[in-house]
Amino acid sequence: MSDDPNIETAESDLARHAEKMAKKKAARDKIMATKTGEKGLIIVHTGKGKGKSSAAFGMIFRHIAHGKKCAVVQFIKGAMSTGERDLILRHFSDLCEFHTMGEGFTWETQDKARDIAMAKAAWEKAKELIRDPANSMVLLDEVNIAIRYDYIDLAEVLEFLATEKPPMTHVVLTGRNAKDELIELADLVTEMELVKHPFRSGIKAQIGVEY
Amino acid sequence: MSDDPNIETAESDLARHAEKMAKKKAARDKIMATKTGEKGLIIVHTGKGKGKSSAAFGMIFRHIAHGKKCAVVQFIKGAMSTGERDLILRHFSDLCEFHTMGEGFTWETQDKARDIAMAKAAWEKAKELIRDPANSMVLLDEVNIAIRYDYIDLAEVLEFLATEKPPMTHVVLTGRNAKDELIELADLVTEMELVKHPFRSGIKAQIGVEY
Repeated sequence: MSDDPNIETAESDLARHAEKMAKKKAARDKIMATKTGEKGLIIVHTGKGKGKSSAAFGMIFRHIAHGKKCAVVQFIKGAMSTGERDLILRHFSDLCEFHTMGEGFTWETQDKARDIAMAKAAWEKAKELIRDPANSMVLLDEVNIAIRYDYIDLAEVLEFLATEKPPMTHVVLTGRNAKDELIELADLVTEMELVKHPFRSGIKAQIGVEY
Repeated sequence: MSDDPNIETAESDLARHAEKMAKKKAARDKIMATKTGEKGLIIVHTGKGKGKSSAAFGMIFRHIAHGKKCAVVQFIKGAMSTGERDLILRHFSDLCEFHTMGEGFTWETQDKARDIAMAKAAWEKAKELIRDPANSMVLLDEVNIAIRYDYIDLAEVLEFLATEKPPMTHVVLTGRNAKDELIELADLVTEMELVKHPFRSGIKAQIGVEY
């Protein structure tokens, strides 16, 4: 201990901190020791905020980093997420299959019959990829939009996930307005909430941020 | 037009849909035409939900995909996000500088003095990377935790971002409990809200999902 009372206070402050943190760590370790299970998760990213797709692609990149096979089906947003698609096709196509079935939002195409056909084809591809046990994760990007417009049938999606998804396969479903029944079935649900958006100040979608 | 009344109804339904969507597209195009600005954004990902870091890494991968220079400083969570770090170091170190300054949460280390020194060093590195106009995006991963524990000074962070960030550089700040003043300064804020988490059912952190 020092003779300087300020230093002594600082030292006892650090000691108190270490003790408090040791207790926190013990409590946390005890909780974590009960978390021993592993299973393939049904993961939903929904809400009006940003980051639904990019957080999902973050998990896809984690899979790629660990050398685990995965796949992506883009249901609607053909025009966005082009950065991730290019990167995966260019560098990691051996680990990650990539299918873009839509070509932009429906008000861009104005052809409902075509949109429905696209969505149904994407869902068939998704089922095939999920059934393949080689895939550790399958991302169904913007599938919630296709479900919401009834382009694909919610009941069929729920039944397929509940009965045919291999137990260790993670399936990630993104898009606004996720159905309550899907949230009910899912293991991990995050709602991305919009707090502040630069569009309001006249800033456009920018390279490397939005796409 | 067909003689079958059902087919006729289906056709007029599709025509109505096309007309409605054309109106939507016109309205949307008009709004988007007013969004012409470009600027380097201050982006905050906060909240208790998942996806704060992985959505940020998604934007980093978008930058990499477009061949734009970027950088990452991990403030606290040395043990997590290892997948992204490995992938970037292995494949894209020419485009993305990566610095991990912390070695896990503070209750893991139990050494406040060391944690403070680490956080301060990380902040110095962050300033250097942000000042370098070659970097189009700099990610300060988990910096909100360092600010919250007063390991680095909020006022200094705010002043630096407001006065020294080059106008076209994007800075992304992640972590729970983002300070109100930071949210006030930011251009784009998303709160990741926890709706459902598999830890509650005894499932542990899994490869490719959490790290």
